[in-house]
Order: sequence, then structure tokens, then C-alpha cells
Amino acid sequence: MQLNCDLGESYGSWNMGLDSQVMPYIDQANIACGFHAGDPDVMQRTLQLAKQHGVQIGAHPAYPDLNGFGRRSMQCSHNEIINLLHYQIAALDGMAQCNGLTLSYVKPHGALYNDMMSKPAVWQAVLQAIASYHKPLKLMLLADNNNQAYRTDAASVKVELLFEAFADRRYTDEGKLTPRSEQGAVLHGDEVLAQVSQLINDGSVTTASGQRLALSADTLCVHGDNPGAVDQVAQIRALLSRAEPQARASR
Amino acid sequence: MQLNCDLGESYGSWNMGLDSQVMPYIDQANIACGFHAGDPDVMQRTLQLAKQHGVQIGAHPAYPDLNGFGRRSMQCSHNEIINLLHYQIAALDGMAQCNGLTLSYVKPHGALYNDMMSKPAVWQAVLQAIASYHKPLKLMLLADNNNQAYRTDAASVKVELLFEAFADRRYTDEGKLTPRSEQGAVLHGDEVLAQVSQLINDGSVTTASGQRLALSADTLCVHGDNPGAVDQVAQIRALLSRAEPQARASR
Amino acid sequence: MQLNCDLGESYGSWNMGLDSQVMPYIDQANIACGFHAGDPDVMQRTLQLAKQHGVQIGAHPAYPDLNGFGRRSMQCSHNEIINLLHYQIAALDGMAQCNGLTLSYVKPHGALYNDMMSKPAVWQAVLQAIASYHKPLKLMLLADNNNQAYRTDAASVKVELLFEAFADRRYTDEGKLTPRSEQGAVLHGDEVLAQVSQLINDGSVTTASGQRLALSADTLCVHGDNPGAVDQVAQIRALLSRAEPQARASR
Amino acid sequence: MQLNCDLGESYGSWNMGLDSQVMPYIDQANIACGFHAGDPDVMQRTLQLAKQHGVQIGAHPAYPDLNGFGRRSMQCSHNEIINLLHYQIAALDGMAQCNGLTLSYVKPHGALYNDMMSKPAVWQAVLQAIASYHKPLKLMLLADNNNQAYRTDAASVKVELLFEAFADRRYTDEGKLTPRSEQGAVLHGDEVLAQVSQLINDGSVTTASGQRLALSADTLCVHGDNPGAVDQVAQIRALLSRAEPQARASR
Repeated sequence: MQLNCDLGESYGSWNMGLDSQVMPYIDQANIACGFHAGDPDVMQRTLQLAKQHGVQIGAHPAYPDLNGFGRRSMQCSHNEIINLLHYQIAALDGMAQCNGLTLSYVKPHGALYNDMMSKPAVWQAVLQAIASYHKPLKLMLLADNNNQAYRTDAASVKVELLFEAFADRRYTDEGKLTPRSEQGAVLHGDEVLAQVSQLINDGSVTTASGQRLALSADTLCVHGDNPGAVDQVAQIRALLSRAEPQARASR
Repeated sequence: MQLNCDLGESYGSWNMGLDSQVMPYIDQANIACGFHAGDPDVMQRTLQLAKQHGVQIGAHPAYPDLNGFGRRSMQCSHNEIINLLHYQIAALDGMAQCNGLTLSYVKPHGALYNDMMSKPAVWQAVLQAIASYHKPLKLMLLADNNNQAYRTDAASVKVELLFEAFADRRYTDEGKLTPRSEQGAVLHGDEVLAQVSQLINDGSVTTASGQRLALSADTLCVHGDNPGAVDQVAQIRALLSRAEPQARASR
Repeated sequence: MQLNCDLGESYGSWNMGLDSQVMPYIDQANIACGFHAGDPDVMQRTLQLAKQHGVQIGAHPAYPDLNGFGRRSMQCSHNEIINLLHYQIAALDGMAQCNGLTLSYVKPHGALYNDMMSKPAVWQAVLQAIASYHKPLKLMLLADNNNQAYRTDAASVKVELLFEAFADRRYTDEGKLTPRSEQGAVLHGDEVLAQVSQLINDGSVTTASGQRLALSADTLCVHGDNPGAVDQVAQIRALLSRAEPQARASR
Repeated sequence: MQLNCDLGESYGSWNMGLDSQVMPYIDQANIACGFHAGDPDVMQRTLQLAKQHGVQIGAHPAYPDLNGFGRRSMQCSHNEIINLLHYQIAALDGMAQCNGLTLSYVKPHGALYNDMMSKPAVWQAVLQAIASYHKPLKLMLLADNNNQAYRTDAASVKVELLFEAFADRRYTDEGKLTPRSEQGAVLHGDEVLAQVSQLINDGSVTTASGQRLALSADTLCVHGDNPGAVDQVAQIRALLSRAEPQARASR
């Protein structure tokens, strides 16, 4: 089980995220590519930081909406989605290589991520973009009770998937995230650690209604927005290290 | 002697340039990378067109100034120039590879090109950006009576240069372009063909004052903005084909 | 019956529309405000042109999507829509006043226009934005068989409406525009003039199925994209002048 | 003596400045207009906050450079400067009126401010923009030993000036700000309060070389970037209140 975190989301004079504090604890850095956040200077800084800590690099591309931070769904065509993904992925990929680093995967951001999970046409466009990129890249998406359907689609175009679970979000019985607008949607403190433990020991979570939901995840999404979030990531890392001492040693 | 042309300078719903008409006549396409013109869709269309005609691909990066079409000088720092070049070059490079194409060179656009030729700090930043890119790329710049100085700088960081001359611009005795604001700065019709002939046969141009100026150029910059410009490129191509039948045959 | 046309949709070095050719024939100029097209220089040029021809001025605001020309629906919140409308309207309003002109009305552009006509929440946000602007402005929208519902909503917040019909689009029996993807959706030549005649003489159009559909319109939307379009506007203007000699005289 | 502060410099999801904490202590809010910072939502929030505290409103327009925060000089033409100023001023002016507020003045931001103070062509363009705006607005600029020359220029186009001094910057003997790169350029703690006292009691500052420099200022520029800065503003406000009890009472 790995830890992934959205990073490089500063822009120009605006800072966001405690990137240098959270980077030591994570395995995978989802780096913004300039369309919702990030700019060439921020991307370069973030790549350097990832290199320093030996963290894997993923592209975190988005709809072209800086003002909305990529959180507003935009009605883009199939080809528009492919081209905007290729552009952003390629920009980060090349900059990574300038730093002696290798891009490993892609995790769409915000509304593009949500649309990918809920709109078949967007899912197909994203998958097609990854499949037609000139080198193999994995695609990170949300683990749910439908993993097999995604795997089948992806296998047909030879794309490898990385399923992520959320350490701090309560799941519904259907394997979706409880909307943030509902009470109890976000877990805190020990609840987070309990959910992580259950995920790594039992491959499941306990849903909002108290059911056991099997959830097969390759990576956990964590956050580095504020000091409390960073502390939580440090605790999750410690928990994982105790659970997987050998995996950590070989990291 | 090759022909290079700025292409892919449409943006969204706005068209610019007769790309499909001029592409058959040129050797090198300088493709905009999204900062002064071009967007992921335009870049993809332009790459496809270049592929269809077997034209070499160059990145045509600029200051981040869409509204000013990259023609306004911006006070960017050394690192800002390197990072914005890496970002734009990488974006086009990766998209080219998705189309089975190879990026060959970089020609800065507009104010960045002018600043590179007139401000030593900008020249150093551009050179450094090309040198630190993760694969070898040539740098296209303006041929003048100072080629050797540029060659020495470039050789020290192992960057190969491509010197370009202008088919349709009158030169000063110092090997600079006569400013467009001055009468006779832009050549027309037979004047253009005469200058091209002199460049390929004698390696020189006749300056505004009537002097012979030796000018060593690898490529000629031509334009595809309007039907008259495209006709001129066709005539220059015919002239080159007569002058260099073997070179063309092996193209 | 007046003629309105989208204008000022150039941007930076990119030209769009034959604004100076179509301006003499129209009554109302819908001027882009910088979010989908237009920039401060283009807006100033367009205002000067409208002034020269005594044409009324409307703001033509859009979602913030320059690359998509405001044609991609964006999931903006109620307050985001109000604020982006206030910003764009105010920018044009102030620039108009600097030219001694008065802003008369607002016509949302592209996807924002379509969303206003199809999504009640967007309609409410647009209406609220016009109602809360600091001076009275009319709102231009699509005439259909539901005019009264719109009038009731608008009257409740004291906003005056301008209903527009399309000279060159075939209507459905339900009073909607036949989608452009369907055959016969766009009228040509004499069909256009026939539809205009029927609109001014009988207050109706003949739908795709041959039905008579009553349509009460204050203004006709015309286009100035190309020479053929401008010719058509000139013909429509001539037709209107014959039909309404007195109205024209008092213009 | 009034206190002015740059505010509304957040953008989308990025926050900058402790606006709500510093607003209670200032007299004049310089509000970003969307070109270097600020967006319609941020502008609306900032206007509401200014209204709540009865603070005067100024437009804080900039070169169009969001990524560079308006701090990079751009080679804009005379007309480009006028139009980009009119656009930004008008946008804020109209939004202010929607909130029942009145725009009072304009203070250019960043590189545009510096260029205005150092390049006569930019000064003339800015002055022309304010003079040709459709309502009287004051122009805020840096007080130096050359106030009279600025006053003469401004009077010739009937623009009223507001001279500002910096509470926390050491001045040179020539009345310029000591560059931040030099030691002692930025004052701290009691040095700040001493400089403010001298400005209000003696209309002078003590320069880096120890000279007394007469400086006639209408307003002091203060900052609200961090808790320490806000504390300093509170102390300056307290000092001004003791010095000008009647002025404050009538505020």
C-alpha cells in the first residue's frame, strides 16, 4: 500500500500546500501541470523536491480552469480531452526527464477526475489518452466495487491501473465516497488510522451504515494542506511502516 | 539551404496562417507551444500536417503573453526563462512523439527571440535551457556578422546552432535587419528572389547601402500569412529546387 | 424589429468577424467582454465603431473560457455567475462611458446563453445579476413559445427583456432552434428573407414540420462572420427598411 | 495622513493577505482588478469587507501577468496601457457601485507602478488613462523630492494626486526607496513607528545616510501579509489616532 498526495499546486506568488513537509512521508507525488495549478517554476521546484525524497512522480492534469482550480466540470469533446491530457502530461514528463526523473502515472484532477469516474465518455477519453501516449503510464483512479469493469476496459488498451482509496473519507455501501455535504463524511484522528488498518489488514472499510465493504486499493490518497494533515500523514506512514517493514526497507 | 516557417499560431476559434497551403513548400515548421499562440488541439493538428508533408518540427516557445502574441518583452528571470522554455518544449516534444515524430530544434518567438539576440542575459538563459533539455535540440537564431561569437558560446555547452536569414528583409551594413519602420525594410517580388539567389550562390546579401555583406545561413525564414506570401514561398522553393536538385532529391 | 449582431470577438493578434462591414446595417452590437473573446484594445475599437454608426451597445459576457470561445458549459455556482457577469458588464459599461456611450442591454454568450435557456438555476442567476446591477439594463434572450414565463420572472425583479429570433435558423414546433446537426437547420438566401418577412408581417415562422408558430421577437440575430453573411444582413436591412420606413427614419 | 493597503490579492482557491484582519485599521483599500490577482468573486468579497469597515476604495490595476503577479515589466504601448487601465478600473468601479460604494482613486500595481515612476512614457499613459476615465478619480503615486513635477503634469489634465510614503522602507537621500537588496532597506518595529512619527510631526524622514529629507505624503502604504504586519498596522493606527484625534473622530 502506497501513499499518494496532490502537490505542486502553488501558482506564481500564491502558495498552497506544505509540500516540503509532506514529501518525506509519501510514495507518489501527483504534480499539477499548469492548467488548474502549477506553473513551470512551481513544477520545477516540486520535481526537485520529489527527487530529493525519492518519491515517484505522477502527472495531475486538469480541465483548463485556473480560476476554478479545475473543480468545475467543462463540456470538453473526446479529442479536446485527449489533447489537453497529452499536452499536460508531456510538459511534466519532459521537465521530469530534465531532472533525471521518470514519470510513472497519471491521476486526473478535480472535475476531470470526477467526470472520469461518473461519465463513460470521459472515462473512455482519459483511457484513450493514456493508451496513446508515447510511453507506458499507469492511470490512477478511485477504487470501488466496480474495479473489474475498469480493469477490463484498461486491459483492452493495455493500460495498467492504480486504484486509490481515501484514508479520511467515509464510504457508502455502494463503494462511493459519502458526499462532503453529509455529516460524518470526513474521518478524523483515530478513525483515519482505523480505516487505514482495516484497508491494509483486511482489504475492506466499514461503510457509513456499518457494513463491511471489500475495497482493493494500491495506494491511499493523503493530504498536505495544513500542519494537522501533515501530522496525520506521518501517523499513517508510521502505521504502514509497522505493517510492512520489509516493503519500507526496500523502498 | 532550408525553409522554415512559423506555424500552428491559431488559437481556439481563431485561425491564423495558411498552414495547410504553405506546409508543402517548407522544410522546418516552427510550431507554437501555447504561450503566445497554439493550444493542445491546434498543436495536434499542426503536428499531423507536418507529418503528412515530412516536415521537420521545431518548438516555437514564447513569453507567457497570449493577448500580446508574445511580442511584448517581459522582464523574466534566468530561471523563469529556463523553466518556461522547458515546459513549452516538453509539451510539444511529447505530443510530437505521440504522433511518431521527433522534435529537432527550438526557435524562440517574438520578443523572446529579439531579447535573445539583443540581451546577453536572455541569450545565456535560452542557451542554458537548450543545453539542459534532456535530449539534444538545435537552437535556431538570426544569422549576422557575429555568428562566431554565438558558435563559441553554444559549443561550450554542446548546443548546435541553426542560423536563419530572412528572404524578404533588407539588411543593414552591420548585418542586422532594417527596422520595419524604415522605408525599403521589406522586400517584394523579384527583390526577394534576388536576395535568395545571392544567399545560396554567394553566401551574401546586398545591404540597404549597397554593400555586399557575407551572411552564412542554414535556413531561410518564410511566411504563410496570406495567399501572396504562400505564392512567394512556392517561388523560393522552386528557385531552391533548381539550385540544389540533389539536396531536394535526398530530402 | 431590430438587428443585433455579435461583435468585438477578435482577440489580440487574432481577427474574427467583419465588424466594420456589418456595423452599418445593425441596430444593436453585442460586444464581447474579455472572457471568451475581446480584450481591452478590441473592446475600445469596437465601441468606437459602434459610436461612429450610432449603434446601441450590449454586453456579451461569457464563461471564463478563452480557449473554448465560451462554448463549453462550465459548472459555475449562482454567485460565480453573478460576479462574472457583474465584472464583464462593468468593464464594458465603464469603457463605453469613457467613449460617451451608454450600455443598453446584456446578451449572454455561447454556453452561458444556452444554459440560461435550458437550466433554471442559470436563468435565475443571470436574471439576478442583471437585477442587481447598479443601473437598469435589458436582458436579451431567445424568443420561444414560453415568453410569458420569462416575462413573469423578469418582471418580479424589474428587469426588461428583449426577445430575439434567428433570421437563418429553422424552428421546431416547440419553438426551439433545430439543432445544427440536423439537415435544414440553417436557412439560406431567400429562405432567410422569407422567414424575416413572415416574422415582421405575421409575427410567426414556419417550422420544420410546416406548422405556423407564433413568435414574438423584438430583435433579429444576424451574423457578420464572412462576406456572404454581411450581404445577407444588408438584404435583411433593406427588407426591414421597406417594411418599417418610419421606424428607420427615426432611428 | 491616511493608511492604504493592497488587498483582494487572492485568486480562485489561493488565498493571500489577511484582508479581514487588516481592513479595520486602514483608510484606503487598493483592490486588485483581475490582471495580476483578484477575480470577480475575490473582488466582490473584498468590496463587501471594505463596505463593512467604511474604507475608501481604490483600483489596483496591473499589467496582464497573473503568473508573474504583475511584477514583470511588460513593453505595452501607450494605448494598450490606457485600455487595460480603463478595463480594470471600470470592472471594479461597476462592481463597487453594485455594492453601493464609490471608487475614489487608482494606484497602479507592481511593475506598472514602478514603470510609472521611472519611465516618462508610462507616466504619461497612466495619467492620460485617469484623465480620460468618465469620472474623476485620484491617482496614487510615490512621494519623492519631485512631487511638484508630477503635480504640474497632473494639473494640466485635471487629475488630483495622492502621494504615498512607505512606513517600513528606508529612503535614499534622493527620496527614493533603498532597494530591498540592500541591507537596512526594510525597517522593523520601533524604526517603523519612528519614521511614521517623523512623517506626521515633521513631514520628513531620516535617510539611510542620516540626512533629513522633507517628504510630503497624503497616505502611508502598509501591509497585511502576515500577523506581524497586521500588528504593525495596528500600532501605526494607534499612533495616528493619538496624533490626529479629531481627524479620526470625523472619519
